[in-house]
Amino acid sequence: MTDKLYIPVLLGTTREGRYSEHVARMITAHAKDRDYLGLELFDVRDFNFPLDDEGQAIKDKNTKWRDAIVKADGLIIVSPEYNHGYPGSLKMALDTLLKEYIHKPVALCGVSAGGFGGCRVIEQLVGVVRELGLAVTFRDLNVSHVQKMFSEDGVLQDESVLKRVDEMLDELEWMSKALKWGRDNLK
Amino acid sequence: MTDKLYIPVLLGTTREGRYSEHVARMITAHAKDRDYLGLELFDVRDFNFPLDDEGQAIKDKNTKWRDAIVKADGLIIVSPEYNHGYPGSLKMALDTLLKEYIHKPVALCGVSAGGFGGCRVIEQLVGVVRELGLAVTFRDLNVSHVQKMFSEDGVLQDESVLKRVDEMLDELEWMSKALKWGRDNLK
Amino acid sequence: MTDKLYIPVLLGTTREGRYSEHVARMITAHAKDRDYLGLELFDVRDFNFPLDDEGQAIKDKNTKWRDAIVKADGLIIVSPEYNHGYPGSLKMALDTLLKEYIHKPVALCGVSAGGFGGCRVIEQLVGVVRELGLAVTFRDLNVSHVQKMFSEDGVLQDESVLKRVDEMLDELEWMSKALKWGRDNLK
Amino acid sequence: MTDKLYIPVLLGTTREGRYSEHVARMITAHAKDRDYLGLELFDVRDFNFPLDDEGQAIKDKNTKWRDAIVKADGLIIVSPEYNHGYPGSLKMALDTLLKEYIHKPVALCGVSAGGFGGCRVIEQLVGVVRELGLAVTFRDLNVSHVQKMFSEDGVLQDESVLKRVDEMLDELEWMSKALKWGRDNLK
Repeated sequence: MTDKLYIPVLLGTTREGRYSEHVARMITAHAKDRDYLGLELFDVRDFNFPLDDEGQAIKDKNTKWRDAIVKADGLIIVSPEYNHGYPGSLKMALDTLLKEYIHKPVALCGVSAGGFGGCRVIEQLVGVVRELGLAVTFRDLNVSHVQKMFSEDGVLQDESVLKRVDEMLDELEWMSKALKWGRDNLK
Repeated sequence: MTDKLYIPVLLGTTREGRYSEHVARMITAHAKDRDYLGLELFDVRDFNFPLDDEGQAIKDKNTKWRDAIVKADGLIIVSPEYNHGYPGSLKMALDTLLKEYIHKPVALCGVSAGGFGGCRVIEQLVGVVRELGLAVTFRDLNVSHVQKMFSEDGVLQDESVLKRVDEMLDELEWMSKALKWGRDNLK
Repeated sequence: MTDKLYIPVLLGTTREGRYSEHVARMITAHAKDRDYLGLELFDVRDFNFPLDDEGQAIKDKNTKWRDAIVKADGLIIVSPEYNHGYPGSLKMALDTLLKEYIHKPVALCGVSAGGFGGCRVIEQLVGVVRELGLAVTFRDLNVSHVQKMFSEDGVLQDESVLKRVDEMLDELEWMSKALKWGRDNLK
Repeated sequence: MTDKLYIPVLLGTTREGRYSEHVARMITAHAKDRDYLGLELFDVRDFNFPLDDEGQAIKDKNTKWRDAIVKADGLIIVSPEYNHGYPGSLKMALDTLLKEYIHKPVALCGVSAGGFGGCRVIEQLVGVVRELGLAVTFRDLNVSHVQKMFSEDGVLQDESVLKRVDEMLDELEWMSKALKWGRDNLK
């Protein structure tokens, strides 16, 4: 993965039976052959969230995420929509860092059981990631009726979504390259 | 508290050193003498959030919250603003219930270290609580520069905020009475 | 219409070829036989929007809308989604009044050419109508692929949507009755 | 202005007595001496908004704006906050174009009579400009209590705001350079 742009993919729910895991794995697998992007999956289940402090304590206990973002050239967030918003675990994970995110692009993937492709959680995440200093791309991946898209063990049933995965990745790649040039050449 | 309308106050952050706790305690204490509203403080630190399932498992482990909302006539949410959004712990707590919230009003209190009174987290919460079936009031309590408003041990330094607390409570009381009439008299 | 609750329906776009007009007419026609709600259609094309002042001048030139809202018991807004937000004409119309809206419920209908039922414009409108003092209901009407739902001259092609129209109207009726009781009986 | 990056500044309200005009003029004047950014003020009052079609007709009648955006390297939007949202005239102006905006950065300036610096209209605009393909920067200019900031004829009373104007412009310049490199060098 040496010369590729490094892109952590954050799977943003711990919920039992989560279908978003299939989506995050699909994106990561589908990107394997790309020349310029190297994706690595991060799962909020692997974070350590202390129950008595969602501030500095989370930061101290999750240095793997910090290290990933420090070296990242961009980021993908895969989030189900819970009551029009983001899961608590995803927010805890995002809130642990700040200046490490600046001038890196983020692509958003919203996941719904219903028909609206998680588009409301995406609108809420846009406000959050912007405050983090991330530059949000404008090609989201909207996944509707996710439980029909995969078999129970996570096999993709309808490959037509992959075209839209590529569109999201193409735009993220464009922004990752442009902002990397900026980070390397501008003050 | 027998004949008063029952209003749980949800303190929505576990962060070490949280000033929002002072705000939630101030609201609850200030409402003590009201004739129609009986407030009770709930702290997300007292919730049990399992790290491997933010779905049914949270619901099963936090029946005290469910029981409170079942008998509630309204709700107050006190939330700091983290990166323009809500804390993860608050969202986990809210997401555990659904039909129990329907046709009950909610008043929102946003808390900021800066000058904007948590008004962005309030905008995000509005989308969430509406999907829960709550009816959001239009008189928020915006708390800016919260660290100057209280001494370190939580004593209020400037009582001028209490007028705005009353405005929030008056409006919540109006809506609580109207919607209680609706729940008692309409199908 | 004497004893019914009076509900203006605001059609919120002037765009040539707007399909939202069919939706607004469908809602108004479908509600004809309801016992408790009396709907009347208002079209932003009939507003007078001076180009040099979207403040007091609009208010002065559109007294019919003000009179309607003064006597209204609730409100329905039918809005297409333009770039995730509301049309400019709709916002001009809404911004002309303020205290006239207080303690009245509003139901939101979002209209999309695509598949997401205008759900993003609804999220943005929620923030606006709440500041106006309106109490937004939680049963929206989401209309997707609107150009397939009607023939060119506006005849409904698929009546299955009417069940969802009724759900929106039932909830608006509930809230209209409860808040009317409040306006009549509470300070 | 030849070699500078070209940045239209859109003043987004027609309201009589608008203070936002002073803000837009202040930004434009203050940027005069910058080496890399060349700002030009556009006023929505100079747009032609036909009352019977906010679609293609606006596009056809406002080619000056289209030409500006076609050659623009970035954009600044100055918007007052009306009921937590954007003015109708601003939205009409923005909605006239689409692909012309892609891969150009936009900086947002929110203006309030109250204390919250227009931060809610900024959150709503973020959703809109992203759908337009613009890349929104993360350094906003929040102007609170605008009527105290200027004399009646628009003379700035407190120059401390200029430091924040520069921060907004610095970030816009960074993004403008990075994305221009992208547009010139990437597919």
